[in-house]
Amino acid sequence: MASFTTLSQSPPKLLFRQLFEKESSTYTYLLADCSHPDKPALLIDPVDRTVDRDLNLVKELGLKLIYAMNTHVHADHVTGTGLIKGKVPGVKSVISKASGSKADVFVEPGDKISFGDLFLEVRATPGHTMGCVTYVTGDGPDQPQPRMAFTGDALLIRGCGRTDFQGGSSQQLYKSVHSQIFTLLKETLLYPAHDYKGFSVTTVGEEMLYNPRLTKDEETFRNIMENLNLAYPKMIDVAVPANMVCGLQDLEPKAN
Amino acid sequence: MASFTTLSQSPPKLLFRQLFEKESSTYTYLLADCSHPDKPALLIDPVDRTVDRDLNLVKELGLKLIYAMNTHVHADHVTGTGLIKGKVPGVKSVISKASGSKADVFVEPGDKISFGDLFLEVRATPGHTMGCVTYVTGDGPDQPQPRMAFTGDALLIRGCGRTDFQGGSSQQLYKSVHSQIFTLLKETLLYPAHDYKGFSVTTVGEEMLYNPRLTKDEETFRNIMENLNLAYPKMIDVAVPANMVCGLQDLEPKAN
Repeated sequence: MASFTTLSQSPPKLLFRQLFEKESSTYTYLLADCSHPDKPALLIDPVDRTVDRDLNLVKELGLKLIYAMNTHVHADHVTGTGLIKGKVPGVKSVISKASGSKADVFVEPGDKISFGDLFLEVRATPGHTMGCVTYVTGDGPDQPQPRMAFTGDALLIRGCGRTDFQGGSSQQLYKSVHSQIFTLLKETLLYPAHDYKGFSVTTVGEEMLYNPRLTKDEETFRNIMENLNLAYPKMIDVAVPANMVCGLQDLEPKAN
Repeated sequence: MASFTTLSQSPPKLLFRQLFEKESSTYTYLLADCSHPDKPALLIDPVDRTVDRDLNLVKELGLKLIYAMNTHVHADHVTGTGLIKGKVPGVKSVISKASGSKADVFVEPGDKISFGDLFLEVRATPGHTMGCVTYVTGDGPDQPQPRMAFTGDALLIRGCGRTDFQGGSSQQLYKSVHSQIFTLLKETLLYPAHDYKGFSVTTVGEEMLYNPRLTKDEETFRNIMENLNLAYPKMIDVAVPANMVCGLQDLEPKAN
């Protein structure tokens, strides 16, 4: 039931699904080790509105959800992690320590998040927010080839996240992408937290050639980012306070 | 630059991209043989509105587009094949002979459509329209594993296309899916022409277990399809006449 393609005869291990939430154009990713007897699974960047869809799919595929993770504190939607924890006992919420947000598990650069025999590596990619991380599938012959990186809003397909809120910094974002993402092999698949044009995936090689912002020198990049003149994020005043407690705002009195 | 994942060290051959058009919730698929020196490519179900996006991607990836194909005569959007032919000389439009539509290449069940060393096999899956086909990647050790089937509107993720227009027949659709799609290996990846809930892919195994319509017996299926009470398709009177000439309605005087 793995949603990927190999040209070899070796049995696939990673089950992978890309899921889309239309209102905020958010991608949620489901990963599982389907060779492991428990089929342990994790969700990256679940959205509150689509939690039932995602959990139903997890159930139908016979997976055991162990982690509900965020790449960062989102400003454009409420994370689904709080709802998921309420619906599936034992699931742990995961976010970076640098986010300053609440969660069950705080990750730091270099940490590994294991699910069965597969794992994700944590890379710090601040700049859109101060706590942004990129999760990269493991490096090794028994891990998915090419590697897959879940970049959150640090790198979008032919774009990047804004840097004018939540401790954002264009200088830091430039450094993050160039040092933590563009140093991966060119064939590495990049899966962003959003896409607004109907693209689903890109590669390091493509973005190094065609990203209209991040192929520029740092000064030009900073000028671009400082002159985007974007509207105030319409969801930010609802989403950020909720997401600082992993979407658990309604559950908090019980959670303490 | 291939957008898939293998667990082996063998070099990937198939470049695959799933592209989404929000207005009609249509998926367009880009496939190319990126091991071949020409990188020959094809598009399945391109939409007129997103032709520039798709052709720009083809260009950036260094591909040579040879076919612009349709799974059927769509009623909900205008195909991009006509525009593509106008913009990229040499591209051939492809549709089933049974569709009764115009195109450069008419395919019939069992035909193979080659692009480099890869190919698609044509399976007749009428019922949504009388000319619907499913394109399935080749069978063989040098072809993508698991196989991938582009089902058009014959099979949608946990659903199927309506059967009340364009020579549709619930009886025929039931037979098509059961004889032409559910007979593929369970791990076969199914990519539909549309999704309205944010799903991107499914498998034969999943749909055989969880499709709420097609897991039923034929009589129940026919009852379901006859009682959907769907609205008249809002684009049908524009889209079908245009798509019967592969979207070439404006170009037709020149094309003759």
